[in-house]
Amino acid sequence: PRTYMNQARPALDISGIFPPIATPFNDRERVDYDRLAENLRKYSRTPLRGFVVQGSNGEYAYLSREERVEVVRKVREVVPKEKILIAGSGCESTQATVEMTLEMAKAGAEAVLVVTPCYYKGSMNSSALVHHYTKVADASPVPVILYSVPGNTGLDLPVDAVVSLAQHPNIIGIKDSGGDITRVGLIIHKTRHLGFQVLSGSAGFLLAGYSVGAVGGVCALANVLGPQLCELERLCVNGQWQEARELQYRLIEPNAAVTRRFGIPGLKQAMEWFGYHGGYCRSPLLPLTEHERKDLRKVFTDNAWL
Amino acid sequence: PRTYMNQARPALDISGIFPPIATPFNDRERVDYDRLAENLRKYSRTPLRGFVVQGSNGEYAYLSREERVEVVRKVREVVPKEKILIAGSGCESTQATVEMTLEMAKAGAEAVLVVTPCYYKGSMNSSALVHHYTKVADASPVPVILYSVPGNTGLDLPVDAVVSLAQHPNIIGIKDSGGDITRVGLIIHKTRHLGFQVLSGSAGFLLAGYSVGAVGGVCALANVLGPQLCELERLCVNGQWQEARELQYRLIEPNAAVTRRFGIPGLKQAMEWFGYHGGYCRSPLLPLTEHERKDLRKVFTDNAWL
Amino acid sequence: PRTYMNQARPALDISGIFPPIATPFNDRERVDYDRLAENLRKYSRTPLRGFVVQGSNGEYAYLSREERVEVVRKVREVVPKEKILIAGSGCESTQATVEMTLEMAKAGAEAVLVVTPCYYKGSMNSSALVHHYTKVADASPVPVILYSVPGNTGLDLPVDAVVSLAQHPNIIGIKDSGGDITRVGLIIHKTRHLGFQVLSGSAGFLLAGYSVGAVGGVCALANVLGPQLCELERLCVNGQWQEARELQYRLIEPNAAVTRRFGIPGLKQAMEWFGYHGGYCRSPLLPLTEHERKDLRKVFTDNAWL
Amino acid sequence: PRTYMNQARPALDISGIFPPIATPFNDRERVDYDRLAENLRKYSRTPLRGFVVQGSNGEYAYLSREERVEVVRKVREVVPKEKILIAGSGCESTQATVEMTLEMAKAGAEAVLVVTPCYYKGSMNSSALVHHYTKVADASPVPVILYSVPGNTGLDLPVDAVVSLAQHPNIIGIKDSGGDITRVGLIIHKTRHLGFQVLSGSAGFLLAGYSVGAVGGVCALANVLGPQLCELERLCVNGQWQEARELQYRLIEPNAAVTRRFGIPGLKQAMEWFGYHGGYCRSPLLPLTEHERKDLRKVFTDNAWL
Repeated sequence: PRTYMNQARPALDISGIFPPIATPFNDRERVDYDRLAENLRKYSRTPLRGFVVQGSNGEYAYLSREERVEVVRKVREVVPKEKILIAGSGCESTQATVEMTLEMAKAGAEAVLVVTPCYYKGSMNSSALVHHYTKVADASPVPVILYSVPGNTGLDLPVDAVVSLAQHPNIIGIKDSGGDITRVGLIIHKTRHLGFQVLSGSAGFLLAGYSVGAVGGVCALANVLGPQLCELERLCVNGQWQEARELQYRLIEPNAAVTRRFGIPGLKQAMEWFGYHGGYCRSPLLPLTEHERKDLRKVFTDNAWL
Repeated sequence: PRTYMNQARPALDISGIFPPIATPFNDRERVDYDRLAENLRKYSRTPLRGFVVQGSNGEYAYLSREERVEVVRKVREVVPKEKILIAGSGCESTQATVEMTLEMAKAGAEAVLVVTPCYYKGSMNSSALVHHYTKVADASPVPVILYSVPGNTGLDLPVDAVVSLAQHPNIIGIKDSGGDITRVGLIIHKTRHLGFQVLSGSAGFLLAGYSVGAVGGVCALANVLGPQLCELERLCVNGQWQEARELQYRLIEPNAAVTRRFGIPGLKQAMEWFGYHGGYCRSPLLPLTEHERKDLRKVFTDNAWL
Repeated sequence: PRTYMNQARPALDISGIFPPIATPFNDRERVDYDRLAENLRKYSRTPLRGFVVQGSNGEYAYLSREERVEVVRKVREVVPKEKILIAGSGCESTQATVEMTLEMAKAGAEAVLVVTPCYYKGSMNSSALVHHYTKVADASPVPVILYSVPGNTGLDLPVDAVVSLAQHPNIIGIKDSGGDITRVGLIIHKTRHLGFQVLSGSAGFLLAGYSVGAVGGVCALANVLGPQLCELERLCVNGQWQEARELQYRLIEPNAAVTRRFGIPGLKQAMEWFGYHGGYCRSPLLPLTEHERKDLRKVFTDNAWL
Repeated sequence: PRTYMNQARPALDISGIFPPIATPFNDRERVDYDRLAENLRKYSRTPLRGFVVQGSNGEYAYLSREERVEVVRKVREVVPKEKILIAGSGCESTQATVEMTLEMAKAGAEAVLVVTPCYYKGSMNSSALVHHYTKVADASPVPVILYSVPGNTGLDLPVDAVVSLAQHPNIIGIKDSGGDITRVGLIIHKTRHLGFQVLSGSAGFLLAGYSVGAVGGVCALANVLGPQLCELERLCVNGQWQEARELQYRLIEPNAAVTRRFGIPGLKQAMEWFGYHGGYCRSPLLPLTEHERKDLRKVFTDNAWL
């Protein structure tokens, strides 16, 4: 817990496990708010620390500006107060990101997660990114969390930019989905004196993240195996590394299956098997083929989850 | 020129040179429609075949939906009828792309250029992309041009997808910015019997593109050296390869400078030197540093353009 | 043809088509010198300009130092004097490359082709590579040709290094296999006043290479379709671009099949179909599976070569 | 500890820290055996488990076949019996690797480390690599350790190939230098029932490696800070994760500096500062510039090692 340099209140503690929640669509590709609410009610009965609404797995890139805000508003209504709500507010331009950030805060987000702009990736050097995030953090009424997800953006937020941005009183942490544990360790080394908090961006390296000082994780797989990830968290925090390792092992392949390998369609399919509503994806994401569905299921049975 | 399979009218002939026009902003990052119009009036007095509004160089990723349409409408008002107006209508979701396509057509676009959706690049395989483009082309009142720009999207539209899509009566060509001339040749080999038209997406390989059968180019550098690119086109089309080569050589470094090396800020700076309004960029794009400006200028003087 | 700056004799003219010849092995993975000789006698009756012995396709990485020299010696015995013999003499260390270069010259090579050292690729910056090639060229009794083949080495010889090395009186050209035609054009632009000669390193962009000023090609496919590549050369040199294009189109897929797609095992299989001895590969290269062989054959039949 | 399936003796336990020792050259680029011996005598007085001779940091790619064997022989003479000697015996061809493996065993190596062949990387799929390693392991009189180092080879040994090879009774482990901790965890998950041992290939993720079940590390930095890495090992093995973390943090930047950032020249320079003989590199590796030397030193002082 750190204090804002120019404010008396402490910054938000974001330790713990957060699912970047999926957005269920109906068969006409409309947001299915009822099923979304049902999912959240179930999730809320588990030790999940809170929710990331519109991380990459929320198909935020396929939502209109209005839908993005509306989804956050609806989630806030359903979710108990003690669960932290983090909203993805990243857009390509700085101005659009600032506006979205303001709207997300108004809709009930307690922090925003801001993905690196990436379309003009050749120009997105440290200077440009520091400038971008500084403007957003200056304007944001809620704390800002950086978000580096090279698998989607083709861009790693450079370590020197992270270290520089960690000094901003309104930038409290980063979700790092790249999986480079050396980089994660280095970021922690260079920023922990500032109270900067690092969240592992994937369940595949959650234990390793804790081992080097990450405080939690934002993991797609938490949409499917939330309580199990919370148990892994508990084991890591308690120093029960042997048990943690046994659990971590069984999560690697399911995690890869619902992310890199089968993407959001895979995630949504797996959610159905575990009692949640995955629902349809928006096009151009295609549903799994029968063959892919079998492969996906095998990953969960092979690791004794089904 | 080919005929639609199920229609009597011929598809649009898109041979020639098109600048993907830059969008000048004022110092408050608002679109400067007056300066945009001035640029277009000047361009219109050259042999440029037409204009691509909201290719990557138009900073379309930083425009709101409303701005995207408004820019096209304004351009259509200014530009003489004989100049072809192609509008970028790509969005991440299929539905948003369809809607933007309809609006662009209404705003006066004679064809749309549709970039590959790319945020969920791990899922953007041939099936997903063929599905996406087919839906868009089915719905579009104007011909559709595919757009593959791996430097921005991290994604190459696969050759097999291009070949498959070339058979759609409303998909008339591709802008390929990847620079892999072997791929360009292969696409032409596999699609020319369908009248499919390939445009080189960069001035760096414009001559080479013509040599393997491309019909033109959409080149950022045409914002700066439009008449010169038209002259290169003329030489290639007339088979004056020796002269073409001399001209091509001098364009490679300036082209790299206003694209990969210094990006849109470099392009806009160079435009100012050649009598056009570059204007400001939207943040997070930063203006060139003094040092970069000097390096950029040196590229143009070294190649005897300044 | 250029003259050495400090010598009276002209440098070697290397325009034309060269196969980087395959090395046939017998079923015990020994070099089959008889079959190699037979291949070369056949090739020598075609307009091929000469031969590259121990380009990547010669499996040079699998030959001992002694075998590398012996193969060159045997080839020189078989091949008529008017055919130019270029030997690959690249090794990882500068000293080993110098020694191999001396031996290759003694064995009858009229020039050496020197691949970029690549194992410590993180340290192979322009300085290191310029230093390496300068040492080799200083020591070599025969002209040196640079060799950039990123598909194998993971390393592109930087343009600035090429431009710098082109000024060395004993460095006469480059084989560039990367396929980036913009880069090829730029290298020619910056070095042609020195008489530096660029060879396309693959048949897939042979026409495009000629269009921007390359003087020939070193093409794996010339092991299979040598006379056809010479015909393509003739058409390009004569300015019969239309006919050249028709021929080029049909070569792209066969070329990809015997290089990137099926590698040397594919090349050797195709050689057998066209009357040459491909023979076995050395392990760990595996022979094609039955299924791969069918796919390979289909590529040649689809393009009307079989 | 596991038992060979078809032999009574236990396989080699390779847990612990191993430096992949540097090879000091004199100013004429000859191997400086005396200084090498001096280094090893010093190292031998520390808790290092043993030595890897001719990992990538040994500049093995720059040694002749004879030198490779001779260096191993000399090291074996100097090093006490209780220190394990692992020799790099990888070559591009299977046959050469088998021969080098036999010679290394004769020269005193207790195990061999076999890097993935990589020049024909397009053909190095799982089948080819499984075939290669199986042949080598079948022939080897000593246990074989797989070696995946994508930073040098441009190739990751696929997980499925590792899992398959782990079943060979003479393949006892892998050195994985890629740094993908999720992959490391997965390999351990899939092979630990076979007694397969995973070594982290870099000090940057040594703690994280231990956290997911790696048994040790082969770390360039152990040439410089050997005792400190052994201390990190001790802390991890004892479950003193908090102290381990503090130590790990301070090692990340020095490790990056002597590997990715400044390469072997950086490693050798740092060795000089810590009382070892780094000596010269073989060309084309260049010595550090004065500026680089300062930057390197700063990394060690910033992390309180100097």
